[in-house]
Amino acid sequence: MKRMLLFVVLAALGTGVARGVAVAQSAQPKPYKVVFDLTSADPMDQRAVLRWIKEVTSVNPKTETEVVMYARGLDLVVSGKSTMASEVAEAIKASHATFSVCAIAMKNQQVDKSQLLPDVQIVPDGIGEIVARQGAGWGYIKVGH
Amino acid sequence: MKRMLLFVVLAALGTGVARGVAVAQSAQPKPYKVVFDLTSADPMDQRAVLRWIKEVTSVNPKTETEVVMYARGLDLVVSGKSTMASEVAEAIKASHATFSVCAIAMKNQQVDKSQLLPDVQIVPDGIGEIVARQGAGWGYIKVGH
Amino acid sequence: MKRMLLFVVLAALGTGVARGVAVAQSAQPKPYKVVFDLTSADPMDQRAVLRWIKEVTSVNPKTETEVVMYARGLDLVVSGKSTMASEVAEAIKASHATFSVCAIAMKNQQVDKSQLLPDVQIVPDGIGEIVARQGAGWGYIKVGH
Repeated sequence: MKRMLLFVVLAALGTGVARGVAVAQSAQPKPYKVVFDLTSADPMDQRAVLRWIKEVTSVNPKTETEVVMYARGLDLVVSGKSTMASEVAEAIKASHATFSVCAIAMKNQQVDKSQLLPDVQIVPDGIGEIVARQGAGWGYIKVGH
Repeated sequence: MKRMLLFVVLAALGTGVARGVAVAQSAQPKPYKVVFDLTSADPMDQRAVLRWIKEVTSVNPKTETEVVMYARGLDLVVSGKSTMASEVAEAIKASHATFSVCAIAMKNQQVDKSQLLPDVQIVPDGIGEIVARQGAGWGYIKVGH
Repeated sequence: MKRMLLFVVLAALGTGVARGVAVAQSAQPKPYKVVFDLTSADPMDQRAVLRWIKEVTSVNPKTETEVVMYARGLDLVVSGKSTMASEVAEAIKASHATFSVCAIAMKNQQVDKSQLLPDVQIVPDGIGEIVARQGAGWGYIKVGH
């Protein structure tokens, strides 16, 4: 029983312990999870996040990526406004990236669900989505330059 | 004793476990804590963070928000420079937001305590304040566009 | 045995528990670890991160800092392009800061290892480096304004 208990404890702590060791060895995890915070309508920022998704998932196909868009970030996935619709479709298809738009921002900017590019998801609160991901251990990258 | 020990272990691990489950269900926590990193004097960024505070606390009045200002972010809360003094007062009053100014940045920019808007707090090191919040499980959002 | 087990559990949980207490007391940790995300070629951002490193390590010499550069952030440490080579050398020498360049970005921009300033390190994936640091409990600051 005592051994089993110790096993339970170590297993419960396992993720953190294992990660600590990996970091000590190389500071480079193998597959990872990362959420990108996009509030910019700048084409340079939009291109950057699409390139990063491609690059990090080509190194590690199991790396999970999510782009959360609010404020001026919405344009990337609004049909008619986006200049990178095919790159977004490619990121979803080839890299299994998730694109999440903030419902509050959609309402503020009068963007309807029907205007979104295919397979883009709506989240009730973009900032809440990012905070939840951070709380679940995802890495966080603010897109900007 | 063994059962009690197991209980202690599971209780100690509880927060993380419970959060993991909540995230798996919806990726949207109910009330949360988030620190905003403001180093921009751009009115668009200043307006954005004030709007976000209003929006996230109107969805969840128990959501806690803090804006940490350093570098060019100070202008938002310096009397005479700020163009959004009433919005800052409203965020403090209605949304219970905390506004924290970096003492190092104040010294660099020769801003005196007496020049700050009412109820703005001073922290010794703005970056240290943000890192402490992240370490305590707060979400982090860089304000920018 | 039971006491020893309890000790193991508490020791394993110790870092988090201790940090929680410290945060409750002042929200300002003494020495800390922070990774700066630099994707900007703007001299204002480059100067800012070098100043912050100096400031936070002068308050706490044991504070650890790392600047991860990718996208347009590389210029800071490319010989001939950098306008702040002596400040980078000073940050490494006096503040023990680490400067890490993304190998993918180097390849994209055809920057060779021989072009980097002295003591700048190369990491295979800049975003992966940042995510690993975050996962190991480092604070994260996006450099921007």
